[in-house]
Amino acid sequence: MADYVYGPGRTHLFVPGPVNIPDPVIRAMNRQNEDYRSPAVPALTKILLEDVKKIFKTTSGTPFIIPTTGTGAWESTLTNTLSPGDRIVSFLIGQFSLLWIDQQQRLGFNVDVVESEWGRGADLDVLEAKLRQDTAHTIKAIAIVHNETATGVTNNLATVRKLLDAYRHPALVLVDGVSSICALDFRMDEWGVDVALTGSQKALSMPTGLGIVCASPKALEASKTAKSLRVFFDWKDYLKFYEMGTYWPYTPSIQLLYGLRAALDLLEEEGLDNVINRHTRLGTATRLAVEAWGLKNCTQKEEWFSNTVTAVVVPSYIDSGEIVKHAWKRYNLSLGLGLNKVAGKVFRIGHLGNLNEVSLLQPPPIHSSIP
Amino acid sequence: MADYVYGPGRTHLFVPGPVNIPDPVIRAMNRQNEDYRSPAVPALTKILLEDVKKIFKTTSGTPFIIPTTGTGAWESTLTNTLSPGDRIVSFLIGQFSLLWIDQQQRLGFNVDVVESEWGRGADLDVLEAKLRQDTAHTIKAIAIVHNETATGVTNNLATVRKLLDAYRHPALVLVDGVSSICALDFRMDEWGVDVALTGSQKALSMPTGLGIVCASPKALEASKTAKSLRVFFDWKDYLKFYEMGTYWPYTPSIQLLYGLRAALDLLEEEGLDNVINRHTRLGTATRLAVEAWGLKNCTQKEEWFSNTVTAVVVPSYIDSGEIVKHAWKRYNLSLGLGLNKVAGKVFRIGHLGNLNEVSLLQPPPIHSSIP
Amino acid sequence: MADYVYGPGRTHLFVPGPVNIPDPVIRAMNRQNEDYRSPAVPALTKILLEDVKKIFKTTSGTPFIIPTTGTGAWESTLTNTLSPGDRIVSFLIGQFSLLWIDQQQRLGFNVDVVESEWGRGADLDVLEAKLRQDTAHTIKAIAIVHNETATGVTNNLATVRKLLDAYRHPALVLVDGVSSICALDFRMDEWGVDVALTGSQKALSMPTGLGIVCASPKALEASKTAKSLRVFFDWKDYLKFYEMGTYWPYTPSIQLLYGLRAALDLLEEEGLDNVINRHTRLGTATRLAVEAWGLKNCTQKEEWFSNTVTAVVVPSYIDSGEIVKHAWKRYNLSLGLGLNKVAGKVFRIGHLGNLNEVSLLQPPPIHSSIP
Amino acid sequence: MADYVYGPGRTHLFVPGPVNIPDPVIRAMNRQNEDYRSPAVPALTKILLEDVKKIFKTTSGTPFIIPTTGTGAWESTLTNTLSPGDRIVSFLIGQFSLLWIDQQQRLGFNVDVVESEWGRGADLDVLEAKLRQDTAHTIKAIAIVHNETATGVTNNLATVRKLLDAYRHPALVLVDGVSSICALDFRMDEWGVDVALTGSQKALSMPTGLGIVCASPKALEASKTAKSLRVFFDWKDYLKFYEMGTYWPYTPSIQLLYGLRAALDLLEEEGLDNVINRHTRLGTATRLAVEAWGLKNCTQKEEWFSNTVTAVVVPSYIDSGEIVKHAWKRYNLSLGLGLNKVAGKVFRIGHLGNLNEVSLLQPPPIHSSIP
Repeated sequence: MADYVYGPGRTHLFVPGPVNIPDPVIRAMNRQNEDYRSPAVPALTKILLEDVKKIFKTTSGTPFIIPTTGTGAWESTLTNTLSPGDRIVSFLIGQFSLLWIDQQQRLGFNVDVVESEWGRGADLDVLEAKLRQDTAHTIKAIAIVHNETATGVTNNLATVRKLLDAYRHPALVLVDGVSSICALDFRMDEWGVDVALTGSQKALSMPTGLGIVCASPKALEASKTAKSLRVFFDWKDYLKFYEMGTYWPYTPSIQLLYGLRAALDLLEEEGLDNVINRHTRLGTATRLAVEAWGLKNCTQKEEWFSNTVTAVVVPSYIDSGEIVKHAWKRYNLSLGLGLNKVAGKVFRIGHLGNLNEVSLLQPPPIHSSIP
Repeated sequence: MADYVYGPGRTHLFVPGPVNIPDPVIRAMNRQNEDYRSPAVPALTKILLEDVKKIFKTTSGTPFIIPTTGTGAWESTLTNTLSPGDRIVSFLIGQFSLLWIDQQQRLGFNVDVVESEWGRGADLDVLEAKLRQDTAHTIKAIAIVHNETATGVTNNLATVRKLLDAYRHPALVLVDGVSSICALDFRMDEWGVDVALTGSQKALSMPTGLGIVCASPKALEASKTAKSLRVFFDWKDYLKFYEMGTYWPYTPSIQLLYGLRAALDLLEEEGLDNVINRHTRLGTATRLAVEAWGLKNCTQKEEWFSNTVTAVVVPSYIDSGEIVKHAWKRYNLSLGLGLNKVAGKVFRIGHLGNLNEVSLLQPPPIHSSIP
Repeated sequence: MADYVYGPGRTHLFVPGPVNIPDPVIRAMNRQNEDYRSPAVPALTKILLEDVKKIFKTTSGTPFIIPTTGTGAWESTLTNTLSPGDRIVSFLIGQFSLLWIDQQQRLGFNVDVVESEWGRGADLDVLEAKLRQDTAHTIKAIAIVHNETATGVTNNLATVRKLLDAYRHPALVLVDGVSSICALDFRMDEWGVDVALTGSQKALSMPTGLGIVCASPKALEASKTAKSLRVFFDWKDYLKFYEMGTYWPYTPSIQLLYGLRAALDLLEEEGLDNVINRHTRLGTATRLAVEAWGLKNCTQKEEWFSNTVTAVVVPSYIDSGEIVKHAWKRYNLSLGLGLNKVAGKVFRIGHLGNLNEVSLLQPPPIHSSIP
Repeated sequence: MADYVYGPGRTHLFVPGPVNIPDPVIRAMNRQNEDYRSPAVPALTKILLEDVKKIFKTTSGTPFIIPTTGTGAWESTLTNTLSPGDRIVSFLIGQFSLLWIDQQQRLGFNVDVVESEWGRGADLDVLEAKLRQDTAHTIKAIAIVHNETATGVTNNLATVRKLLDAYRHPALVLVDGVSSICALDFRMDEWGVDVALTGSQKALSMPTGLGIVCASPKALEASKTAKSLRVFFDWKDYLKFYEMGTYWPYTPSIQLLYGLRAALDLLEEEGLDNVINRHTRLGTATRLAVEAWGLKNCTQKEEWFSNTVTAVVVPSYIDSGEIVKHAWKRYNLSLGLGLNKVAGKVFRIGHLGNLNEVSLLQPPPIHSSIP
């Protein structure tokens, strides 16, 4: 049907999401609706719920595959674990952490904002100070983005866990892994993350439409007493249907379920750690290129370098938005705009998900029977 | 990739959603991601927002295309127009009205439930009595399903409006049109509906994934003072981006946007009133068939007959669930189960959306240039 | 893009080809071009050539997958095995055997036509008489359709072989299996068939585009001395590339190769003999229905009944073409026209390939890794 | 289903065919079979036959859309216009002209081969000499490739016409436009070409499967007396069905018909002359790049430079096949091998069909109704 902008050749998608979808995923989604109450869909769902835990590196977590976006996954994370007025320590380091904090405030939480200059990571010294002081355990949760998509900054979650352990602090650790999970090294169980979340259109390399949230046993426990009002995002409804073996409190997207199956199959085939290493190579290569262009990385220190997105600072006499516009109009190339505080100052190169890199194609596997 | 159940031939989908997707819609969705911040996506969105109003028969309404399901569309409707504790008159006539009422209660509203026997429509006499008494206007909203999908009952919305007008009552009229809009006669402006909602996988004949909500000017006004906590479902965020001309507070599904374009094109081509007439013919035909089988319609009176779904009562010595299971296993035919109170007692035939009927195919239109 | 005739619902395709394509095959073909000289395409081709032999029930045959239709596959069969002027015994029993005979004559062969009334099978008594007389072995080939698509008549190939053996006659047996292979019981090796051919759009349930020809060692030997001019259809070019391991003398359709892979996978999964049994059930069911309608089968004796197509004789006061036209316009249902001698007198129901039947859907296989 | 070689990212297809398919064409082909005897397919075919003439720049020609490849289109061209023993002047300038000459010889024509060094164009001085001498008009046809895909050499067809006119020679001009039509400046009527041919997988940017042949009135006239045996490739069968208005002597590929519709729509939208100019820019850019790399173009003179393919000569100590293999394994990049005489000496860059170039994307057209 209508193709709203057409030029010969292909779109070069280098935004930090939505990313390029692998052809096998597009093929898997090229299908009719199915009745989700038939025996086939629960059978598919059951194994998806099992397999999706691997992308979080958890065995004890409980995943929720919600028909929503990252914003909805945030809301599901907060409302299921906390009650209005609960104190959250939250780190403002860029546009996406800012938006999450805005959500936290609008949902009635008491947010203790720890702000850093954009381009720097979460200030964990401040966190330490707060934990030290909080002997009364008024802090109910730490909310942190693993990777700030607006500035290309990766936070150190292992240190967050170490600090909490050092002070024996019971706060929940809520992690936005939207631009990290399936691309950066993320270890839910090892780092004691209580809720982690991502969206299908990021490193999973699918269309938008699934907010995937994973809850630790402690988070599940918290959800039993959390008083935030919620229905659509309520884990309880999912858990009820998990027990019944039908899995879905409301109609899932059949197409996205098969797409997720295909995406997880590809991850399994390549190996999650190989995928993460590939992102490391591409992140490094991008930074070397930026350096070679004589431009500056918005990220101020190597420890925060992001392997999924690089925000490139342009000289002050240039509007970075013009670069993005020019790239689109002239090269059919999509780059990320600078957002909010860094609007006009940076443009962003997304290097996550289904992207080429220098590789050795394998001799093809030979299949003779239907998968 | 993996096809989890395969038998030769085609699945016969006769559930009241998700429904059969037309091939042009599947083709339109067979595509890569795009950057939603490029100029192309807002241009597409702008015209979608204009065209989608037609399915509600409104010119004054403001539509919101939300990446969610019907359940989320319900939540968006309630939380944007009402404050916790607000009194809602709500009609319990089947499983889906029950679930909506459950949501209303869990979201902290004061729900005045008007229950009917399953198989009967909303009791508008009770509504009248309540309106008559409510001279203080404590009733803030009437929440009603246009069509109860569990029992195949269509409520009379024109009468609801007449009653409100008769008593000059300012309550908002919130309508679940999930199994009616694009199939039954629905007139948002004429009937003074304040919020109407549907889901993409119903009569629009798309995959699941879009909750489409349309708000009257009065509803929009109400949203400015409604105190229900909300972020993901907050209209305010949409309105802000509408004004900026970029339209999306968070990442939309590119595939569903093009799918919606195709679905609206097909509606436009056939003509919405022709589509509604087609549903009338198919609904009538189904009821005649049920009668010919010697079976009873769950819907107790002709005035409530639904042209989108028929719940068929089986003889008491038969478990209707067995019929559904048998149809699936033996004929690759999906029917709707009886739910809750009517479990085992009825099975449901969905006759909405993209279904064949006796028709005269037209001589093909001749196109020589790209759309 | 343009959909030239659109009505709600689905097309009901009951012509004896092209047939309904299974969704997994459509998905497998939804892809970009690939370089057929890369290592991946030969690897795929090699296994396809091995697997495609199974549909002919041969282990000693050599298959050729030619970018053409059935008509081209006929031509490939004739020109590779015979020289101009060679005597062929050929059976005229309907429109498709007639067209093949026309081709044989136009290609310069000396065709000994054995005609039967349309609705009857090949007259093997005449064949026997000819073989008995032909002690000089002037007959170089027997050309016979396994199943005449115009009348729904299946010939008895086992008897053909018996007669040849009885008279120790060395004539090549050339079989048009277009509407039989993958649907009817066909045994290339056991029946001593020298060349068998089919087209992708028939019981293989793919799009048109592949003429699949399989040659016995004796046929291959004959091809070395056959003097018919040929290039595009010359097996020699294929054999040369088979030896080089690159397989293709000219560009293959990548999409059809992957589609063939998927189609063979589905056959393998269901089991070829189960597929043949399914066609027997559907053929029988169709004949029972025709009988119940009080109509006559064009096929005159049970021994010739076809399990892939039934030609239904209409009462003399009706034009069968009107039935076909009516079915298409009013029910979006495609039936086969009566052709040539039986035009206006019969309409045809194709019951081959990817069609539903009463079945027991299996509990879904569970796959967790990519195929 | 099975994806036989998979690596993250996309395949970079820079072979001179098959080329990259535009997404709208892939979408248009993502569909079920249809009955080609229904009214819809002839209606589509009729307009396709009209529109396809534009790619040849002819109004007087008669096109044949044959389910075959370029090799089959060659055969159709020769056998419909010539009789065995007829004298053809044919130019050997690379692998594809060599293969065509091989076909001409195997089909029994008397081929007068004019050979040039590979990298040079057809020697038109020799042609002139032959025409001058041939006062008896024993030369029945000139067979020439417009563009030799193996060496990247474009012949000057206007000069061929001028020579024929100068000597008032009636020989037919048969042109292989496989790697030129839809990409290079080609003018069937103006240049008095009698038969021109191309394949769908070349500059039309579709899958393999259609050999498109266009015949001048003079060629059609010649086909009435040409004695070459032919059936599958016989124009007469097409012409018979053209007259009947059903168009197809045997089953066409429904998917390719809709794909061709979409491909012609895209050509129409961009404008054929703009498309040709785009190829000029890309051809020029490629040659500049080759020069900048310090490598030599296989094409010896500027007048023969090809805007669809560049054969790059590698230093003598390098095997060009290794470059091609390395590009594929390491960069998922497909280049063309050197063939036959230039094997190991050149690699080829295809720059035809659906490729990006520096462009200005247009503000999107707004469509509100179905195409």
